[in-house]
Amino acid sequence: MSKGLPKRSEDYSLWYNELVKRADLAENSAVRGCMVIKPYGYSIWEKMQAELDRMFKETGHTNAYFPLFIPKSYLSKEASHVEGFAKECAVVTHYRLKNSEDGKGVVVDPDAKLEEELIVRPTSETVIWSTYKNWIQSYRDLPLLVNQWANVVRWEMRTRLFLRTTEFLWQEGHTAHASKEEAIAETVQMMNVYAQFAEEFMALPVVKGVKSENERFAGAEDTYCIEALMQDGKALQAGTSHFLGQNFAKAFDVKFATKEGGLDHVWGTSWGVSTRLMGALIMAHSDDNGLVLPPKLAPIQVVIVPIYKGEEELQKISEKAHDIMKQLRRVGITVKFDDRDTHKPGWKFAEYELKGVPLRIAMGPRDLENNTVELARRDTLTKSTLSLEGISITDYILDLLDEIQATIYSKALNFRTEMTSEANSWEEFQEILESKGGFIAAHWDGTTETEEKIKELTKATIRCIPIDAKEEEGACILTGKPSNKRVLFARAY
Amino acid sequence: MSKGLPKRSEDYSLWYNELVKRADLAENSAVRGCMVIKPYGYSIWEKMQAELDRMFKETGHTNAYFPLFIPKSYLSKEASHVEGFAKECAVVTHYRLKNSEDGKGVVVDPDAKLEEELIVRPTSETVIWSTYKNWIQSYRDLPLLVNQWANVVRWEMRTRLFLRTTEFLWQEGHTAHASKEEAIAETVQMMNVYAQFAEEFMALPVVKGVKSENERFAGAEDTYCIEALMQDGKALQAGTSHFLGQNFAKAFDVKFATKEGGLDHVWGTSWGVSTRLMGALIMAHSDDNGLVLPPKLAPIQVVIVPIYKGEEELQKISEKAHDIMKQLRRVGITVKFDDRDTHKPGWKFAEYELKGVPLRIAMGPRDLENNTVELARRDTLTKSTLSLEGISITDYILDLLDEIQATIYSKALNFRTEMTSEANSWEEFQEILESKGGFIAAHWDGTTETEEKIKELTKATIRCIPIDAKEEEGACILTGKPSNKRVLFARAY
Repeated sequence: MSKGLPKRSEDYSLWYNELVKRADLAENSAVRGCMVIKPYGYSIWEKMQAELDRMFKETGHTNAYFPLFIPKSYLSKEASHVEGFAKECAVVTHYRLKNSEDGKGVVVDPDAKLEEELIVRPTSETVIWSTYKNWIQSYRDLPLLVNQWANVVRWEMRTRLFLRTTEFLWQEGHTAHASKEEAIAETVQMMNVYAQFAEEFMALPVVKGVKSENERFAGAEDTYCIEALMQDGKALQAGTSHFLGQNFAKAFDVKFATKEGGLDHVWGTSWGVSTRLMGALIMAHSDDNGLVLPPKLAPIQVVIVPIYKGEEELQKISEKAHDIMKQLRRVGITVKFDDRDTHKPGWKFAEYELKGVPLRIAMGPRDLENNTVELARRDTLTKSTLSLEGISITDYILDLLDEIQATIYSKALNFRTEMTSEANSWEEFQEILESKGGFIAAHWDGTTETEEKIKELTKATIRCIPIDAKEEEGACILTGKPSNKRVLFARAY
Repeated sequence: MSKGLPKRSEDYSLWYNELVKRADLAENSAVRGCMVIKPYGYSIWEKMQAELDRMFKETGHTNAYFPLFIPKSYLSKEASHVEGFAKECAVVTHYRLKNSEDGKGVVVDPDAKLEEELIVRPTSETVIWSTYKNWIQSYRDLPLLVNQWANVVRWEMRTRLFLRTTEFLWQEGHTAHASKEEAIAETVQMMNVYAQFAEEFMALPVVKGVKSENERFAGAEDTYCIEALMQDGKALQAGTSHFLGQNFAKAFDVKFATKEGGLDHVWGTSWGVSTRLMGALIMAHSDDNGLVLPPKLAPIQVVIVPIYKGEEELQKISEKAHDIMKQLRRVGITVKFDDRDTHKPGWKFAEYELKGVPLRIAMGPRDLENNTVELARRDTLTKSTLSLEGISITDYILDLLDEIQATIYSKALNFRTEMTSEANSWEEFQEILESKGGFIAAHWDGTTETEEKIKELTKATIRCIPIDAKEEEGACILTGKPSNKRVLFARAY
């Protein structure tokens, strides 16, 4: 029930937390920072997975599975990689419990200490490149295009459902190539796949770009990303694709016989999106009544609610509803008929608004008489009466779901356009950040020092250097030093 | 290449290990007991997952996701449960590494010790029932039918690829019900789902039964199972479904308001199958040439290999092959055309035999002239020439794939029938075990003591008390005490 859902305008953060829980998406578990993804939330994630997996396979990738545990010494083999992950990793030190002396419980058995500690994977580059060493001998073994769906653990101090959790679900692609050019092309391709997924399925416009050195993945030579804007004006990194150069190939000694008869280190990439996308989806579109789900990812696309008094009316409505359901299902629409007698129609309306069902059909006795149904769109919260006389209901609903998908995207795009500003001075930059937030395109002198200073002063970070940024002479907003393109700043999740 | 694959008759165990590696199914990782599931192996597992997932959803279950980590105190809440798992669990004790004093690596940071140790889930009953406590208040919240696809860890001392690994992938269903009868019905239903999957998709005949008390899941009141027979005469437990009674509901205080206005503990079940099924699939059907895959789980169902001299011949064959592929794909057959010029046809034949591709089509210039193709069945290793004149190739191949699926099943069923014996005395029991192995139906006095004695003397265990075991007066093979039905013994994986 949406009753009591906090308003976005009053407390955006509380609104988000409450929405995630009340819409049955996820909840905190007894283990600090680990979430339970509830059935309704998981069914959205499954839809995301299915589409992404299809896109990965269409671009030539296959799935595999690598171990959860990484020997501590492996993590250390790539210097900047261990630097990036050592501070937040779960460490397995023992492999057995035993009964406590007082007989009241179990304790760690000191005799079962591991010789080398194991790290619960925060990401799998090290364990995968140690495996690739045996898989790659010659250019004939390349490219190697592998993806894995897995759980990973990063010991975050401040966690939030979906956005930042100790354990999360994700996919991580790990590819190996014979040349630098090919690896870079793969990195860019996967950023484009992510962008396409975000825009077409999540109805979420994203900016494609490259991270500054400071925000790069630990062990990468370049990190490409997609950045989205949430309704509170904060940015959210929705996916990253890393060009690893030969870093991991060198760390794990992965060489290949080239076509020309030489021997060279392999070029690598890695790329991932996670259950964080659930957070992006929720925050980008939902409103004070609850979730707003784009039809392409909605577990239930259409719900039919009967309005009736007594068994006889229900039966007549039910017959017609089942006929409509049958037609809609035949064209692949997911539809639910909620004829529970334990709840009133008004309660059900609120419930499906909270759950973000894109389209609600209500049918009462007058609708039967007139051969009509009442349609309610979740995205616009508008109602209309549809006459079924002489129309194809399947065509109508398919078109309407497409329109809803497009409308949700347009709304998000318009919002982002309004919330993207240019700042040409430090004062202007600060003023925009404080008054409206959003993306701010501004000149920057290219140094990590300046970037960190800006972050310290304003909490805004460089989200990316957009792929399509124009060459333009300018002066850094903080230092006044020369710059030749604008980068995108924002406060971010 | 099958060259050098050990023979089953000489060293079954070595044959299995080598086959798993050479057919690109899995390999050992750097972490003791943890495997890497390679792309080809994983694609078989994905097919299994897809079918099982469909069957779970058809029986009303939805997926969700619960945390990887279990607080140590949770594991202890159900007494026999902790007894069963404490001796083999990975324990997380710290959440951070730091640079070592000598600057040469990283060490566990002693300041980052967890207040309470976390166990990497060996199974999720405890963390799930602690969650269900908040999800269940009334009979209206029941039944709760949830499944999870996840990785689990059990610190096994002797590991073998797929059959027994420290980390493995599985699904675990966890359901909650308002009555004992309903929970038992669910337990039996899921055993039946597993049996149907094994027989229809894996082409693997299984015995459905109940475990003896001694072999029961730690925390269950009854464990139902499906048991299969491998080619070396050893049994393999392929799936289990547990009736948990009110054990976990009591341990985690999960009560519900009954329809009648009372308050009662919830009744539970849990059920799972794992990547162990991969081991069963491989060992049940494969031969000295390599894998034999049932068409319903084969990632590639048909491979087309061109036999040609020179570009011109290849091009003509290629045109026809593409025409055939298009037709086959339209009816959902997975087909690959291998026109690599880096390998000879004979090499490719051996390769696809090793990989278990059910049907191979070879096409040479004479086939083009005569409008024929050569068909080679993997299951029977037989070849035939098929005239395409006036036939529907799609119908023909679809029928043939069905026939292959049925043949593989029949062969396994015949083998199991031959290898299932009755023993009526201790001497006979021992003699059968030593001479042929397999399942032995014999009388047992029903005590754990006798069961353990038999295991100690012969390494044979009670696989199950078959669901369809007839009432029959008899005497226990070891003690001579009375028994009223035969149970199934075998040495087992």
